Amino acid sequence: MDTLIRFGISLPKGLSEKFDRLIAVKGYTNRSEAIRDLIRAELVQKEWRDNKEVAGAVILIYDHHQRELLDKITDIQHDHQTMIISTQHVHLDHHHCLEIVAVKGRAAQAQQLADKLRAVKGIKHAALTFSSTGKELP
Amino acid sequence: MDTLIRFGISLPKGLSEKFDRLIAVKGYTNRSEAIRDLIRAELVQKEWRDNKEVAGAVILIYDHHQRELLDKITDIQHDHQTMIISTQHVHLDHHHCLEIVAVKGRAAQAQQLADKLRAVKGIKHAALTFSSTGKELP
Amino acid sequence: MDTLIRFGISLPKGLSEKFDRLIAVKGYTNRSEAIRDLIRAELVQKEWRDNKEVAGAVILIYDHHQRELLDKITDIQHDHQTMIISTQHVHLDHHHCLEIVAVKGRAAQAQQLADKLRAVKGIKHAALTFSSTGKELP
Amino acid sequence: MDTLIRFGISLPKGLSEKFDRLIAVKGYTNRSEAIRDLIRAELVQKEWRDNKEVAGAVILIYDHHQRELLDKITDIQHDHQTMIISTQHVHLDHHHCLEIVAVKGRAAQAQQLADKLRAVKGIKHAALTFSSTGKELP
Repeated sequence: MDTLIRFGISLPKGLSEKFDRLIAVKGYTNRSEAIRDLIRAELVQKEWRDNKEVAGAVILIYDHHQRELLDKITDIQHDHQTMIISTQHVHLDHHHCLEIVAVKGRAAQAQQLADKLRAVKGIKHAALTFSSTGKELP
Repeated sequence: MDTLIRFGISLPKGLSEKFDRLIAVKGYTNRSEAIRDLIRAELVQKEWRDNKEVAGAVILIYDHHQRELLDKITDIQHDHQTMIISTQHVHLDHHHCLEIVAVKGRAAQAQQLADKLRAVKGIKHAALTFSSTGKELP
Repeated sequence: MDTLIRFGISLPKGLSEKFDRLIAVKGYTNRSEAIRDLIRAELVQKEWRDNKEVAGAVILIYDHHQRELLDKITDIQHDHQTMIISTQHVHLDHHHCLEIVAVKGRAAQAQQLADKLRAVKGIKHAALTFSSTGKELP
Repeated sequence: MDTLIRFGISLPKGLSEKFDRLIAVKGYTNRSEAIRDLIRAELVQKEWRDNKEVAGAVILIYDHHQRELLDKITDIQHDHQTMIISTQHVHLDHHHCLEIVAVKGRAAQAQQLADKLRAVKGIKHAALTFSSTGKELP
């Protein structure tokens, strides 16, 4: 367990009150945890900008009736298999699949994988979520 | 299969050339598909802004050694079980877990679920990806 | 001057060190000010989501040789004159103008103004910056 | 004037209809112009990612009663004077100023200027808008 560093901060009264209301709505029970999360969110952005080793997820929506689509998606995933951890597949309705590809690797390569999947004809939407391996995120 | 509508567009020569280079790098093999994806990305943003029924994923990074963390995450997921489709769990290293929660429901409720999970002490990072059920996304 | 509220927070040692490095690079001289800015940035996002009275700027890039462009831009600005505070105009090169329209009003109306200006033929790029009137931002 | 390149694209009927509705709301009178703007928005993002020469605006909200604030803002602007084109100043109310700094230079330097200004005590909010010099944006 990491040592805790304690220090005091000061906020203008109005800002402090707004902050308390904001974090109550979001479900925080203490200010430290809310502030830690604001800082960590900044650090995760920085990991991606600096092309560090990151984790994330590519989320795909597609109609599985589209010809050859599954072959192409599988081919691309195999080309990037060193960075793909696992894949989760959901049948949204008779036509639509939601597929979530958990990835870990360099930020630029994760971006490239998402771009290639998005470009496949029949993929309706591809989004890449920026997260972290947690290792560099105390 | 949806009927295809064909129409002509015009781009300044320089813009057309830059567009062709951009989409080649991204792996597109034709312009129509690239333009469709630009349009769909706009429509997905709009589905979320208009609080439509959407699909998405909440991605969590946490240290599973943190006390009571798993109980709290499970409790929150049960409170929102009608909108959670399935959960994928990955052991990133000895300490860190990556958990991806596939969700489907109103955009505002998906946002609320992500906020609640982020606020749990021990969750290092929580990100919400905006995607679509595909139904309203031709 | 608003009263200052002082309270203590605790951060894991590693997070505290990363935070100190991050804010040093950004030019902060104390942690309180950096944390206040993280909180205020959240509150500004919320003002825009909640369609409050906000301030912001629409920034336009266009080629002033385009026919009738200036008339159309002026017409649109007059239609929204109650929310436009002032306009700054810069000649970037022989062709290109940078125009920055300072706005104050409801968030949705600022968005609408930016959309209308972007749609004018000859406007190469229109971006809307989210800021605040400051009144609700202690 | 740049030559126009004409080519045909095809969209699924449903997507075409949604696109037409979306762009009508935004005020576009033809599809080509709407598609050009989607492409240009991508290219502007790319100019910033690739640290090209860009244009943009830093928008500041501050309370001018804060001691020494104006001196510090002016000092920072002078340190970056080669990239600052002009500054627009608006008195929002008795306390609050909105200041918009038009900038032109490398993307990373514009980011650094925005970071330094944000870090000044008394600046309530600083936002950086990404735009373009237009030169590389046909």
